[in-house]
Amino acid sequence: MSTHLPDHLAAGYRAFIAARSPAERERFRELASSGQHPSTMVIGCCDSRTAPETIFNTAPGDIFVVRNVANLVPPYEPDGEYHSTSAALEFAVHALKVKHILVLGHGGCGGIHAALSPAAEPLSPGDFIGKWMSLLDPVAKAVGGNSHMTARERQSALERIAIRHSIANLRTFPLIAELEAAGDISLHGAWVDISSGELWSMDPETGDFERAERPDLAD
Amino acid sequence: MSTHLPDHLAAGYRAFIAARSPAERERFRELASSGQHPSTMVIGCCDSRTAPETIFNTAPGDIFVVRNVANLVPPYEPDGEYHSTSAALEFAVHALKVKHILVLGHGGCGGIHAALSPAAEPLSPGDFIGKWMSLLDPVAKAVGGNSHMTARERQSALERIAIRHSIANLRTFPLIAELEAAGDISLHGAWVDISSGELWSMDPETGDFERAERPDLAD
Amino acid sequence: MSTHLPDHLAAGYRAFIAARSPAERERFRELASSGQHPSTMVIGCCDSRTAPETIFNTAPGDIFVVRNVANLVPPYEPDGEYHSTSAALEFAVHALKVKHILVLGHGGCGGIHAALSPAAEPLSPGDFIGKWMSLLDPVAKAVGGNSHMTARERQSALERIAIRHSIANLRTFPLIAELEAAGDISLHGAWVDISSGELWSMDPETGDFERAERPDLAD
Amino acid sequence: MSTHLPDHLAAGYRAFIAARSPAERERFRELASSGQHPSTMVIGCCDSRTAPETIFNTAPGDIFVVRNVANLVPPYEPDGEYHSTSAALEFAVHALKVKHILVLGHGGCGGIHAALSPAAEPLSPGDFIGKWMSLLDPVAKAVGGNSHMTARERQSALERIAIRHSIANLRTFPLIAELEAAGDISLHGAWVDISSGELWSMDPETGDFERAERPDLAD
Repeated sequence: MSTHLPDHLAAGYRAFIAARSPAERERFRELASSGQHPSTMVIGCCDSRTAPETIFNTAPGDIFVVRNVANLVPPYEPDGEYHSTSAALEFAVHALKVKHILVLGHGGCGGIHAALSPAAEPLSPGDFIGKWMSLLDPVAKAVGGNSHMTARERQSALERIAIRHSIANLRTFPLIAELEAAGDISLHGAWVDISSGELWSMDPETGDFERAERPDLAD
Repeated sequence: MSTHLPDHLAAGYRAFIAARSPAERERFRELASSGQHPSTMVIGCCDSRTAPETIFNTAPGDIFVVRNVANLVPPYEPDGEYHSTSAALEFAVHALKVKHILVLGHGGCGGIHAALSPAAEPLSPGDFIGKWMSLLDPVAKAVGGNSHMTARERQSALERIAIRHSIANLRTFPLIAELEAAGDISLHGAWVDISSGELWSMDPETGDFERAERPDLAD
Repeated sequence: MSTHLPDHLAAGYRAFIAARSPAERERFRELASSGQHPSTMVIGCCDSRTAPETIFNTAPGDIFVVRNVANLVPPYEPDGEYHSTSAALEFAVHALKVKHILVLGHGGCGGIHAALSPAAEPLSPGDFIGKWMSLLDPVAKAVGGNSHMTARERQSALERIAIRHSIANLRTFPLIAELEAAGDISLHGAWVDISSGELWSMDPETGDFERAERPDLAD
Repeated sequence: MSTHLPDHLAAGYRAFIAARSPAERERFRELASSGQHPSTMVIGCCDSRTAPETIFNTAPGDIFVVRNVANLVPPYEPDGEYHSTSAALEFAVHALKVKHILVLGHGGCGGIHAALSPAAEPLSPGDFIGKWMSLLDPVAKAVGGNSHMTARERQSALERIAIRHSIANLRTFPLIAELEAAGDISLHGAWVDISSGELWSMDPETGDFERAERPDLAD
């Protein structure tokens, strides 16, 4: 097979095509003709270890997915600038009418690390990471200078704080606030421990993250 | 199992955990301790039918993934505003030192549709989709008013034009241009036919998209 | 065997005669005595890779076939000049009373290429190709100057546009328009991908070309 | 399989695809990438019983084929009008540089019949067949009024006369005359007896048509 793809992707595509069952092929055809109707939007991180489709074992058509560095949601800013994540939110809520939005964070997040330990010099003169992570300025100082916590504790704490902050920012979007008040959309948070692949889900009342029980431990 | 997740995600997570082999668990542990070292960054669309991990059959750790509406790359704009996609690019190129960047488009893209058929009214007062898709203004008019093409042909044409436009924008980032000139990074384009799941890869010389040969034809 | 034919045609004829079954001989005899009654007329291209009889696996007597450069149908012009394609149409519709007319285009068409990239000088002083392809003047400009599309994309787009244009020209023939309105004839378009031999058929409602499903996917 | 094709063509396409060997698929791919290089052009009739590809058992890429009513070649007329057959000739000789041109007639030709027995009224007000067959005016009178020949003899005679007339017209094209004089192209005539499928080839010296010996009678 001759493609212009990186070798590992060409090989992966070949495996994908070869492994598909007729039912899966049929599902693609249906999804193409009927359009996508995902019930859930996931805001995840670019990190290579945190694909929502893997962690939630989803099939094509199940989840609408934004991925940016550190799975951040900016506040509602109808300022005429372009906003990648807000555009995706607008599409998911207004056009696709999703019923759930999940902010999915994870351990060992490079973006969160950058927010806590700004490099002496930006990664590039554009300092895009510095500027992007400044979205956490209102909350990063909560743990940033806390010498009583270890570096790993500060990191893990800010990963959770950031998820709650993003959920709060979701509520600055007028329609989301309205739909949530009417019970027509629900907002969720979750955090993946990438060392084990285990998921911790956020209690919407308390904001606490609790490990989703493992099936082999449950019932 | 009680979680605070949408039911279908909770069920999917349970299936993910239950199906993992010891080798897969071990891989997560290694990825957590050694950090991620993906060789490839993928810029994909939020569309629920186009998860790069599915199409390329990748494992955790393989690809660093940005997903935004219509898989767009804005031009290099070190203007002090926050730029989600540029931040991810900066992290991938400067920190992770990826060797490949792939812009992955697809058929039936809602963002491209919006660029070609702007609604009479924006989806929301913020008009985030309208503003975001205006990144294609320099190229959308190339087919937008073409009455000799069908609506689907205009859509399919702009999907490909947009991928080439995003790749051109990648080259406005100084380090990417420099690395590409030195042969240290390569830029790729691909487009997924969601009705069949088939991939078309872009010839870097001509810009043409060619169907990756089907495995049953290859040897 | 001594003939006055090119060697490869003499050899091919010998193979044709040798391979015929008694049933096939009988079919020729019947066709000669009863006359031809094809239900379908095909307007195809002269290109050596696009014989309709091969692609549709037809037998003698099945299809009435005009082949000209780029499978064009001129508009109805009862001007007293001779018109090869219009004469064939008149014969098919008025004398043979075909029920279907199919305009069959294909990828990599040399005539379409000539329409998009007129040579600095005509092929010969008569400039017959230039004049013939000028039948596409009303539509060629639709993509001809589009620098955002690759040369191959412009070619592929015009191949499809030209098929729709020829079908529109078919409707300028009074009897065809009348028969179609009465449901007594139907007009079709199709396009062959010569790299794979796959056929794309035109949706009569939208004008879109869709790949005829592969037999291995059908049931 | 859902297509927008007449049923018999959809079924035939399915059979064509299903029956292809890997070698045949590969041949299509090569033909697409390398372009067509047929050594021979055939000018045949639209008649459904006379596909040159069937009679000469050719493969895709072998012959460049014009088909019009009664396999006529008009004289060289660089008059600025569009000429379908002359355009194809120009392309075959100037661009493809074919080595052979074969005019292929056949028995029971409806066009020849029309030339000999003009209807009281034209088939349609445009009288395209009448005008097209007037290309034979210079020779049709040679047998048209000959009451000593039967109708079938007149038909058969004019079918052969017309082939020689078309070959003479080929020589009015300056480059064809020049190439033939230089030995770089050769012109051929042949006639198919559709009742038996047998071919009669024209002796280039005498103009006589002789039955190509049948293999089962030869050696």
